[in-house]
Amino acid sequence: ADQAAMRAASERQAALTKPAGSLGVLEELSVRVAGMTGTCPPAIPAPAVVTVFAADHGVHAQNVSPWPQAVTAAMLANFAAGGAAVNAFAKNNGVDVRVVDVGVATPVDQLDIIHANVRPGTRDLSQTQALTEDEVAAAIAVGADLADSLVRDGYRCLLTGDMGIANTTASAALIATFTGATAAVVTGRGTGIDDATLAHKTAVVETALVRHAVPPTEPLKALQAYGGLEHAALAGYILGAAANHVPVILDGVIAGAAALVAQALHPAAIDYCVAGHRSAEPGHAVALKTLGLQPLVDLDLRLGEGTGAVLAYPILSCAVRALAEMATFEDAGITS
Amino acid sequence: ADQAAMRAASERQAALTKPAGSLGVLEELSVRVAGMTGTCPPAIPAPAVVTVFAADHGVHAQNVSPWPQAVTAAMLANFAAGGAAVNAFAKNNGVDVRVVDVGVATPVDQLDIIHANVRPGTRDLSQTQALTEDEVAAAIAVGADLADSLVRDGYRCLLTGDMGIANTTASAALIATFTGATAAVVTGRGTGIDDATLAHKTAVVETALVRHAVPPTEPLKALQAYGGLEHAALAGYILGAAANHVPVILDGVIAGAAALVAQALHPAAIDYCVAGHRSAEPGHAVALKTLGLQPLVDLDLRLGEGTGAVLAYPILSCAVRALAEMATFEDAGITS
Repeated sequence: ADQAAMRAASERQAALTKPAGSLGVLEELSVRVAGMTGTCPPAIPAPAVVTVFAADHGVHAQNVSPWPQAVTAAMLANFAAGGAAVNAFAKNNGVDVRVVDVGVATPVDQLDIIHANVRPGTRDLSQTQALTEDEVAAAIAVGADLADSLVRDGYRCLLTGDMGIANTTASAALIATFTGATAAVVTGRGTGIDDATLAHKTAVVETALVRHAVPPTEPLKALQAYGGLEHAALAGYILGAAANHVPVILDGVIAGAAALVAQALHPAAIDYCVAGHRSAEPGHAVALKTLGLQPLVDLDLRLGEGTGAVLAYPILSCAVRALAEMATFEDAGITS
Repeated sequence: ADQAAMRAASERQAALTKPAGSLGVLEELSVRVAGMTGTCPPAIPAPAVVTVFAADHGVHAQNVSPWPQAVTAAMLANFAAGGAAVNAFAKNNGVDVRVVDVGVATPVDQLDIIHANVRPGTRDLSQTQALTEDEVAAAIAVGADLADSLVRDGYRCLLTGDMGIANTTASAALIATFTGATAAVVTGRGTGIDDATLAHKTAVVETALVRHAVPPTEPLKALQAYGGLEHAALAGYILGAAANHVPVILDGVIAGAAALVAQALHPAAIDYCVAGHRSAEPGHAVALKTLGLQPLVDLDLRLGEGTGAVLAYPILSCAVRALAEMATFEDAGITS
């Protein structure tokens, strides 16, 4: 992040027609965006796009979710038709939607989405390595290349989205790896499982953590151990946004797990991340703490798809717009 | 609120393509809007307008604020020129802005705003009644008539805004009256006063509460005792929105105090209120509790002007849009 731009932004905040500090969290947020973009005032972070990275998980075979794996593909059709929550939110907030098949198990060739399937779902993380080294690299490249391409197309704010039945299981394993929290702390109900399934899911995560025992200094090995393909792609997307000096708004627990991977690879990448919201999934708060990010919205959402990121986008945009467009006391002829 | 529309909305929420409850607070919010408008799915609450009611306060003479009273009028010029935070947020979120002089002390005849000055500021609430019975009625009518007029003009969501140096002092007295909290609990730093000024401001509020001793069952007498003209107008605006079955998004502590007046006059009016945010001003959380409202945004803002309401508007709109526009599982051909 550009320290000179951040200093200039802090000084400008102090001169705007409002009591010092009265825009609360939004003031610091605007200063961070100045640091990301290297300009003060920063340009409005528009246009914005949310990319929904979709993939399946071999651990689904362990009955960690009540939903059939085919729902991942069915929801991709729903995204493509504009019928999902992320579509409604994105339309409302002026955010474009891209959908990427980076590893869905069911063929979705007929859909008008971005086809970048690395393999049809990960292997079962509770039994074996979820991905090979090459598969991890390929999935990271899908996200990083797409971030480059979106910025070339003119997007100035990238939002994360995700879809994949059983993806909270892989997220829990990744979050435990990078935060040191136990499986019991970071494993949650995902889409809404009962107590017995939660206990089973937690045991699956715990067993996998013992089996693979990846240290937090080995992010690529963690992706090999646990997946998922969308986590790898999201990590690449975050790194790509950061490399392009463009803010990236993180959605929920899946994005939080991916951001921990990105942080382990390049700590400075987190300077470009904004936490859109805090998910109801317990691992997310743990991830945000290690990332050092404060969520903008906290409304008990636990849907994924990018809904929390899209919901937060106008807040980021308002923060930047206030810094860029408000009059100073001098402009307004006000002296206190 | 329309119970049949709310039941229909709850049923529709359960059929949409997402795990039950996964949109958290937004699901209940969408059901509330269905109840307000009497339709399911409710129409998108657009277009939206934020009305900034501005007035001055005689208690300013007691040195409860570091800002000169003339800043109220200067900020009206800033609103009219589009240079304030509320203008930046409103532009970002597609919300129109109206500015109303309902009782500014300094003449603002030259500004292109709504002129409805009932009197040039209240009398000093620490010394005497702030307003007469007729003045309260006139200010309430300004807000109620404007709400009617805005709905006639096609607005389908009304947001509250406010401006007035020393208005957190009157707000504290009103909030103490209706919640039973002490002056020490509800009096805050407003635009950012030091410890000594805070202690003095708290004593001023306490003395006024003892002097006037208005019971919570007498909202019109409370407005006479403490003002302000913008609080009365805001109460009328809230009642007007409710009478027109249109949602009203409340901003911060000033709106919270006015909503307590509206609640005391017509409890059902609060069915039409959405708490935009929780202000850093301590009385606001106390007011929200008595109103029974949960804020959508909590980002340490303490500016007023309507900024918190405008920041929350896209969240309300997303909640309604999801209910109105998402596919059902049946539409999408998904069975669990």
